[in-house]
Formats: sequence, C-alpha cells, structure tokens
Amino acid sequence: MTTAAQFPPYGDFEADCPARMAVDLFANSWLPVVVYLLRDGPQRHSELLAGAGGISQKMLTQTLRRMERMTLVRRRRYAEAPPRVEYELTEVGRDLLVPIHALGAWVERHGPAVTAAMYGEPLG
Amino acid sequence: MTTAAQFPPYGDFEADCPARMAVDLFANSWLPVVVYLLRDGPQRHSELLAGAGGISQKMLTQTLRRMERMTLVRRRRYAEAPPRVEYELTEVGRDLLVPIHALGAWVERHGPAVTAAMYGEPLG
Repeated sequence: MTTAAQFPPYGDFEADCPARMAVDLFANSWLPVVVYLLRDGPQRHSELLAGAGGISQKMLTQTLRRMERMTLVRRRRYAEAPPRVEYELTEVGRDLLVPIHALGAWVERHGPAVTAAMYGEPLG
Repeated sequence: MTTAAQFPPYGDFEADCPARMAVDLFANSWLPVVVYLLRDGPQRHSELLAGAGGISQKMLTQTLRRMERMTLVRRRRYAEAPPRVEYELTEVGRDLLVPIHALGAWVERHGPAVTAAMYGEPLG
C-alpha cells in the first residue's frame, strides 16, 4: 500500500476517514462545478446560475450554503440598493482547483473514448 | 476564462459536456474508491468488499459493471475450480489516480479544518 500513508491514522476508506470526506465532497456533483466557476473571482448567484447549465435555483442555494459551512466560499454582502451579494473562493476552496484541473486533464485525454465505449459514439 | 480552453468545444458546464462527465464520474462516490483500491494490482470481489468500508455487495457489483462499461477496469476470469475472478485497472482507469491523489493531498492539507468548521471538532 504505497500511498496509504497519505491518510493516517485511518484505514484507507473507513466511512469516517478524511479520504472518504474528499470523495463525498465530489459526490455532490455541483460543488466542484461551483468551485470551477468561481476560479477567476467573485460571482453573483445569478451568474453562477447561468454558468452551471442545468442547476436549479434551490440546488445552487443549497450547494452554496454547504460550501460556506465547509469554508470553501465566502459570502460578501455589499450595502447597495438593491443589496449586492457575491460569493468568492477562500484559500481552502481555491486549493480544490488542483484536483478539479487534474480531473479536467483526464477528461481531455480519455473523455471521448470513454463516451464512445459507453454510448457507441463520442459526444464531440 | 483562463482555463476554459481545456474543455473545447463545449461551454464550461453544459449538461452534456465532457467536463460534466468527469464530475458525474466522481458523483458515484464508490467509483474513485474502487480505483484507489486497485492501484497496486488486481483484486477479487471479496477483497474490494473488505477494502471499501461500508459498501454493499450489490453496490460493488454495480460499480464494477459501470467501470467495465467505461473501460476503467478489466475483468479477468481464471479457469480454476472454483473459478477465480479478478478486476484490474486499465490505463484509462489508472490515469484516474492522478486526480484521486490530488484530492487526497487536498484532504491531507485541509480535511481536519473543514471537518472542524462543519462539526465543531476534527475527526482525528
């Protein structure tokens, strides 16, 4: 188990270990999408809604609340009329861009072939 | 959008784009766990069942079938008595270890603090 030392003092994938936490984090598939959309700076709720194709308003709100609790995003409220609210990545959230980009690179390399294997033809 | 070029010719997260496929791939939270468990070589169903704490036999079977369809794992059947069946990573599956390890590094760095923020105390 060459890389098991990465996750001490837990067994590799016991239900309460931090490694499982990371996996569960991506199990909400909108969470990494929102992290990615915030990569270049703060965004408003409406901008995120437009950027994440197919997300519902309610799901986006739930995802952002969860990300706030996890300290991945910070909510900024500006005292304007009407009040402007923006979301931005914290350093913890920004660091998630590393695995997200690694996933992106995997897709770039293998996505079309995997799609072809599953559905008979590539999407692109 | 500095990194959008990673995912041409799709909009960043349209529902059918390959980037979303990657995210959905991790949305089955057992899939990356099984990839990780296979990192050092082939494993039998029973070994994977023991390694992935909390997975059910049925869920493991479904996950492995999905991974076969995606060409992430290869199923090998040895003509012994009783027949031995093993699963091993393909090159496509092995490449998924890169984002998985990147996630592991993120957890190592931020997991305890995030857990503390969510639940009031670190798990470790």
